[in-house]
Amino acid sequence: MMKFTINRDTFIKTLNDVSRAIATKTTIPILTGLKLDLTADQLTMTGSDADISIEASIPVTQDTAALQIAEPGSIVLPSRFFTEIVKRLPEKEMTITVTDTQQAVITSGQSEFTINGQISDEYPLLPEIAADHSLQLPADVLREVIAQTVIAVSTQDSRPILTGVHIVIHDGALLAVATDTHRLSQRVVRLDGAGDADYDINIPGRSLTELARTIPDTVATIDVRIAENQVLFRLGDTAFFSRLLEGNYPDTQRLLPTEHTTALTVAADAFQAAIERASLLSHESRNNVVRLVLTPEANTAVLSSTSPDVGTVQEEIAFKTLTGDTLDISFNPDYMKDALRVVGPSDVTMAFTSALRPFTIEPAEATSQFIQLITPIRTF
Amino acid sequence: MMKFTINRDTFIKTLNDVSRAIATKTTIPILTGLKLDLTADQLTMTGSDADISIEASIPVTQDTAALQIAEPGSIVLPSRFFTEIVKRLPEKEMTITVTDTQQAVITSGQSEFTINGQISDEYPLLPEIAADHSLQLPADVLREVIAQTVIAVSTQDSRPILTGVHIVIHDGALLAVATDTHRLSQRVVRLDGAGDADYDINIPGRSLTELARTIPDTVATIDVRIAENQVLFRLGDTAFFSRLLEGNYPDTQRLLPTEHTTALTVAADAFQAAIERASLLSHESRNNVVRLVLTPEANTAVLSSTSPDVGTVQEEIAFKTLTGDTLDISFNPDYMKDALRVVGPSDVTMAFTSALRPFTIEPAEATSQFIQLITPIRTF
Repeated sequence: MMKFTINRDTFIKTLNDVSRAIATKTTIPILTGLKLDLTADQLTMTGSDADISIEASIPVTQDTAALQIAEPGSIVLPSRFFTEIVKRLPEKEMTITVTDTQQAVITSGQSEFTINGQISDEYPLLPEIAADHSLQLPADVLREVIAQTVIAVSTQDSRPILTGVHIVIHDGALLAVATDTHRLSQRVVRLDGAGDADYDINIPGRSLTELARTIPDTVATIDVRIAENQVLFRLGDTAFFSRLLEGNYPDTQRLLPTEHTTALTVAADAFQAAIERASLLSHESRNNVVRLVLTPEANTAVLSSTSPDVGTVQEEIAFKTLTGDTLDISFNPDYMKDALRVVGPSDVTMAFTSALRPFTIEPAEATSQFIQLITPIRTF
Repeated sequence: MMKFTINRDTFIKTLNDVSRAIATKTTIPILTGLKLDLTADQLTMTGSDADISIEASIPVTQDTAALQIAEPGSIVLPSRFFTEIVKRLPEKEMTITVTDTQQAVITSGQSEFTINGQISDEYPLLPEIAADHSLQLPADVLREVIAQTVIAVSTQDSRPILTGVHIVIHDGALLAVATDTHRLSQRVVRLDGAGDADYDINIPGRSLTELARTIPDTVATIDVRIAENQVLFRLGDTAFFSRLLEGNYPDTQRLLPTEHTTALTVAADAFQAAIERASLLSHESRNNVVRLVLTPEANTAVLSSTSPDVGTVQEEIAFKTLTGDTLDISFNPDYMKDALRVVGPSDVTMAFTSALRPFTIEPAEATSQFIQLITPIRTF
């Protein structure tokens, strides 16, 4: 007979965080549910889709929660439906009472819902991750590294390892890299105080995307614990678990070109706008390519695209610098859009070797330790 | 060789208005296009899906347009694609030049698009509506009447006449009524200065919904002209045409009850919130009904709903007044939600005769001339 009363806004906030992990479709039906665990001093909510699990607690000491615990206990409730009810209740507070037959009675003001739950013993246990090896990461750095690498993660299941971001922690630095074989994105950050931590893991891209959404603005440092096949990110009162991908990530270092013959530096936002215009036409044609013709001798860079049905677009790009050999190269504008978006509004340098070899995209400030690679498309 | 230069923001604003009428799927391919007509003193854009047509003009005298006419002419351009281009152009102004081969060259800054158009002679002509009979309607009244009646329009094609709003103008008053046979909504407004205007027409509900979206906040009075099978609403520089539905609208006056045995007055917003909570459960069950049990003797009004799979909800309604006989009635909560939404935040009175007879919903102020009807659902 679990029973508690709580401030609805506080409850909803935590519920929203946990809901990110809750499965909508799953082969394990109980994972579509939200698990509530009430002890003498806190309420814990858990959501999971087997790949990602989120556990968040509201302590009885938290003033805004106004948590009154009448009797500890636990239950699993149908999450989508329970969430809709909680959001529409009339009063500031609500009370949840669980009966012996696993029914939850939710009351607020004159409103009373009775919904069928499931016994919490049937809910899978979260992995235990030893506390002895942990690593601290600044939240903003983690968010940036995730944003810059997940764009290049593969969405195809044919090579599962490529659906993850490869993360190597070694010698006081973190290297994150992802590639779907058409493009690659790699970011390196110094880790002050990482000590002799030494890890080589592959985290599913989807887990990292959800993690980035879950990190609250109020959390400055994230505690990371890595086990055999799981990683745990601790964000204040929230624990975010993800399974790791098994297997060895391919060697990506050999893919990075060491020299170039043509280089173009442009303002990322202006070039982005031109790419978006050109992609209006490329999206109307079968092969979705834009063409960039660089003529350093004539001091021109011309972007163009053609759709036989609809028409053509051509635009002279205003650049900062253009050096090296003449080049005529074609590529997928959507890859370029993603790449420019995560570079941000700074200047960006693209370095090319030939029309058929991958080219690099880097922020013009050489110290960024952020490099992207796009494979061109053969059009002849 | 039509050619003009124009301020892009002004052009986009008018383009957005006209685009509302442009067909996305149509049996007449040219109607997926936008027609541009340039004369010596204005640019006119036309969009149409055969049911609705919108024509809007930008005069050369309009300062914000900065319209420079180099050569009059006309063309039909692929609207979706053209709109995307115009919205992404780099500069404040753009120039459109049409070649002899019906190609439009769109330039702005260094960006140059060439797209294939069609000769405007192939575009259907808009209906001619004589100017001798016209009617003035305040824009806010028209918007309100539309919002209050289109909710009850039928979405089924089995009785086409019911997909329209029946509008009768007679004796200096406008009556608008719609019913899908499950519910009915009727609004009457006085028309000062309607003179001896006498009309009985059926306007498609979809036309009225689009019309309400098209009326700009800056327009106070709308000029209405009614012809045999068309109606024209003139909103400033924009002309909105709709075809009329053929046939006789059924007699709805006999459906309105003249007496009642139970009456309930509640605050519309509080009752709306309770209905939304109850509908969470009704939506999970097969027949989507909520139950309202009124017991004037005990001074209680109880709303409830049950889904065998998920659970139950029950709520005591705080009411203003409750009089008459005991009543136990069930109805579709979605119809009630729509009805309460268009009543607004005022108090609302529901009047009932029996569990199987339609009941009325009216603003508590008796002078509103706005009445809605919902048919209950038999659950026994």
